[in-house]
Amino acid sequence: MNDSVYMARALKLARQGLYTTDPNPRVGCVLVRSGQCVGEGWHQQTGNAHAEINALHQAGAQAQGATCYVTLEPCCHQGRTPPCTEALLKAGVKRVVAAMEDPNPKVAGQGLAQLKAAGIQVECGLLQEEAQALNRGFIQRLLQGRPWVRCKLAMSLDGATALASGESQWITSPPARRDVQRWRAQSSAILTGIGTVLRDNPALNVRYEELPNELLSAPDRQPLRIILDRKLAIPESARLFSLPGKILIVCADSSLVKAERLRRMGVEVIAIPATQQGLDLKALMGVLAHREINELQIECGARLAGSFLQAGLIDELLLYIAPKIMGDAALGLFRLPGIQTMDNCIEVEIKEIRAVGRDLRLLAKVK
Amino acid sequence: MNDSVYMARALKLARQGLYTTDPNPRVGCVLVRSGQCVGEGWHQQTGNAHAEINALHQAGAQAQGATCYVTLEPCCHQGRTPPCTEALLKAGVKRVVAAMEDPNPKVAGQGLAQLKAAGIQVECGLLQEEAQALNRGFIQRLLQGRPWVRCKLAMSLDGATALASGESQWITSPPARRDVQRWRAQSSAILTGIGTVLRDNPALNVRYEELPNELLSAPDRQPLRIILDRKLAIPESARLFSLPGKILIVCADSSLVKAERLRRMGVEVIAIPATQQGLDLKALMGVLAHREINELQIECGARLAGSFLQAGLIDELLLYIAPKIMGDAALGLFRLPGIQTMDNCIEVEIKEIRAVGRDLRLLAKVK
Repeated sequence: MNDSVYMARALKLARQGLYTTDPNPRVGCVLVRSGQCVGEGWHQQTGNAHAEINALHQAGAQAQGATCYVTLEPCCHQGRTPPCTEALLKAGVKRVVAAMEDPNPKVAGQGLAQLKAAGIQVECGLLQEEAQALNRGFIQRLLQGRPWVRCKLAMSLDGATALASGESQWITSPPARRDVQRWRAQSSAILTGIGTVLRDNPALNVRYEELPNELLSAPDRQPLRIILDRKLAIPESARLFSLPGKILIVCADSSLVKAERLRRMGVEVIAIPATQQGLDLKALMGVLAHREINELQIECGARLAGSFLQAGLIDELLLYIAPKIMGDAALGLFRLPGIQTMDNCIEVEIKEIRAVGRDLRLLAKVK
Repeated sequence: MNDSVYMARALKLARQGLYTTDPNPRVGCVLVRSGQCVGEGWHQQTGNAHAEINALHQAGAQAQGATCYVTLEPCCHQGRTPPCTEALLKAGVKRVVAAMEDPNPKVAGQGLAQLKAAGIQVECGLLQEEAQALNRGFIQRLLQGRPWVRCKLAMSLDGATALASGESQWITSPPARRDVQRWRAQSSAILTGIGTVLRDNPALNVRYEELPNELLSAPDRQPLRIILDRKLAIPESARLFSLPGKILIVCADSSLVKAERLRRMGVEVIAIPATQQGLDLKALMGVLAHREINELQIECGARLAGSFLQAGLIDELLLYIAPKIMGDAALGLFRLPGIQTMDNCIEVEIKEIRAVGRDLRLLAKVK
């Protein structure tokens, strides 16, 4: 058996934490001695043991002389739990293969360096891309100080999100809408604009009852719901207030009387800088990163989606395409007043396309 | 070996005529005796021998006692060539397996009936769907009196065909534009509207030099180019006039002086009924079927494409999707003023999606 096989197994274990580790990274670990897997573990939830500790616990004395395959560099700092490097050394692990360095500046290669200094064989970079894909939000937040932003959209085959009347429910079919729930469930937060709240009165929560079985066992974690509402126009009767989970309303002036009323309903209201074009989205990204928001899913109308896109803040498109034609009077996906020539269109790279029921789901990276 | 394998081979042979048999159907034939393939043939071009005759010719005396696998019922009438049923009987073929009946009312089951009456074992329907897919245009023309209409479109990921300025060249990349040439090459005719001619000044011909090798050996057949031009606004300097291939201009009044001038340039001009909404597209379909147009590829703007779609005349969408975002001020695919609610959107069924270079190509059937 070669190293890749064990690292692939560790990645698979890491994925088990996809819906639960936030704001921590998803990490998996496999301990192998004499070609035998002697321990496996993954990180399940903030405050719980790290993947390495779970694997060491399972291996017990058999960790002695084993190779440790781990999808993220072991930590060397005292965080919510003690450093994993110490535990690995204490257990007598002989070799550590990490898929990637920890982007956390408190680690950033020092974990591996510490192990190496203690005489352990250390390698890094095996299946690195796959490991990075699991924690894009965590990595981007730590390295760039902003969340990984995924823009979810549903459109007809001819690129319409709603009819001119505003009617948009439902473009896609139930399997696609259930699929959206999985992406919400792995997000740290879901963001929309006041326009969408006023028009669609969305819930923006994870409807666990619609999720496939694999997710029913996940804790009923609800991502933070964020509403961009510059002038606090949100009605106190909005549906999202009646559903479990935290809400953050972002406005331009949080000293308004309305802000106080919303706070009394248990909603957090903050102000960020604004210009005539709207709230300062880049400033918002900094605020959210500071709050440990790794993955932000935005689900909003063409105006706000266009602002995010033109500000260069969308990393990934999650686009559901329904097999129907709505005509060119319908509403589009992105308002992009800046685009006057083909040369300044926004380029994306299509990463994946697959059928979800009768609809298509497309994933693209914004260049 | 079972029957399906031989029929699949016959279908593969038939496909060799994809770009050359028009207006005849693509047909392939395999003769098998004692588990040995003794003859193969396909129809290459109008006026040339049918697939069965080519296969019999190759088999010679070995056709005696063979099974004939043919993708379309053998003809029993004197057309441009003598009936194939007679040739099969004369060669002593023992069994005939056809994928489908010939939709031509001059045959329509009588070919198989004749063979059966002569004591030959006859079966029909093996791999029927695959055989139908090869000749959708031929079948639809003969059974419904109209061509199979494929609407070719290129759009950005957000459903735009051109910027508001009209700029649209080029949304897709060279591999996708080369791919379009293959679909043109298998069409009987390419149709556009005067709006597109005035805006883009297209060639609408098959650029054989851009085609993959498999097609370079095809004869330099040019599909008929059809321009819908109610008032004969086409400039005599239009690029399409300078390129090889026939041109048909369809207007509302062919007695205009301009019509005469165009005719003197070697262009055919005909009139069809028109209403205030434009030319009568259903009447046009009858005219084109009468001219043995099997497959019609339309490549036009949102207004004409919308008219075709709302008249229920588009059978298939051939949609190229470029990985770029153009914004909601750009122009859409179909003008469909009739659509006011989600219930009357036009439903399609996605049949295939694949990558063509960095773009996607999607095939959908209009329901």
